[in-house]
Amino acid sequence: MELKKVFEQRRSVNFFDTTKKIDLRLFERIYDVAKFCPSSFNLQPWRMIVITVPKNKKKLKEAALNQPKVEEASLMLIVLADTRGFEEMDKIFDDMLEKGYQQEEAREGLKGFARMLYDNPVASRGFALRNASLFAMSFMLAAKNFGVDTHPMDGFEQDRVKKAFNIPDRYEVSMLIAVGFHNKKKVLLERLNRKSFKEVMIKEGFKTGRRE
Amino acid sequence: MELKKVFEQRRSVNFFDTTKKIDLRLFERIYDVAKFCPSSFNLQPWRMIVITVPKNKKKLKEAALNQPKVEEASLMLIVLADTRGFEEMDKIFDDMLEKGYQQEEAREGLKGFARMLYDNPVASRGFALRNASLFAMSFMLAAKNFGVDTHPMDGFEQDRVKKAFNIPDRYEVSMLIAVGFHNKKKVLLERLNRKSFKEVMIKEGFKTGRRE
Repeated sequence: MELKKVFEQRRSVNFFDTTKKIDLRLFERIYDVAKFCPSSFNLQPWRMIVITVPKNKKKLKEAALNQPKVEEASLMLIVLADTRGFEEMDKIFDDMLEKGYQQEEAREGLKGFARMLYDNPVASRGFALRNASLFAMSFMLAAKNFGVDTHPMDGFEQDRVKKAFNIPDRYEVSMLIAVGFHNKKKVLLERLNRKSFKEVMIKEGFKTGRRE
Repeated sequence: MELKKVFEQRRSVNFFDTTKKIDLRLFERIYDVAKFCPSSFNLQPWRMIVITVPKNKKKLKEAALNQPKVEEASLMLIVLADTRGFEEMDKIFDDMLEKGYQQEEAREGLKGFARMLYDNPVASRGFALRNASLFAMSFMLAAKNFGVDTHPMDGFEQDRVKKAFNIPDRYEVSMLIAVGFHNKKKVLLERLNRKSFKEVMIKEGFKTGRRE
């Protein structure tokens, strides 16, 4: 599908067709497009838990303010941001070396650089959330390209979701994504406004003394 | 362009053609596609500072570990994540009301809900970074659709960038994005590996006692 059409047609769908399932092979095809998104040093610090079993959906729903779409969607994704993902630099470096991005002499320097950038609680969280969100956006667009609808959700209890699915401390739940097919009996309302270019854009920096 | 092609062809470009400029109208056309990305309550808690003036690029480069592409790119984007963006719920609610998403009686409840979710330092930062990153990813894909190359960067000094461009405290610099056109004299190396579906995907949750 044309990229522009995908952007225009992707909507956060609240009502899913509960009769439709998503084949895991289709899910993999979506992943195989989404995976091309960029990440810091290509570290890809994200995982995704796929929830399809009814009793797990129910558990997730209870941790997500009882929002009905958690059970109505074909599947639920728990997108995890890996705050320790920067520790995988050796593996990334091997790939860089093989493809001519780096020379072996640079290995320890680059690993040290990644630690310098990310190895503290504030920075590692920022690193993880930024990158996992780049992936999440790519995933939602790739899904729409295959006719699959999504709804990103951040209304959930972090600790409760982590406990319910045995998620190790190193991960922060970045968001949930409901995945499925829009229930066509429920008409989508007109899209909400987007800010204009002028509202969002600032030329060359804030003026001194300007209050925001 | 086909979405799948855009995903495959988007590369983080390190070498930009320094002779090419980007018309601000083209930039606006890119924004007008990227803006359709989702955000929490549609709050769109992001701004983007556009840097084109050489002396400002130089200032930004100094705050970004002196990476040459900051000066070589046609323009630099400073993507700002607005940690107070959830305070704009009234405006969003007006739009929701007009389009039939909500009834007036729900206004204070929904505002309270947004404060409950985001009004503390940890949550507001997560809110801002997640959403600004969804936007950043949309922007990079929309740019490529118009033949414009990008490179997301998180190698910079947060405080220095904020000081240099008078950025108010409420914003966190989420990332920088170098924007321009690939210098075709510099051949792009083979793309780095992406993790396989199996490496990223976890079915139904972590097993109890599994160590990560």
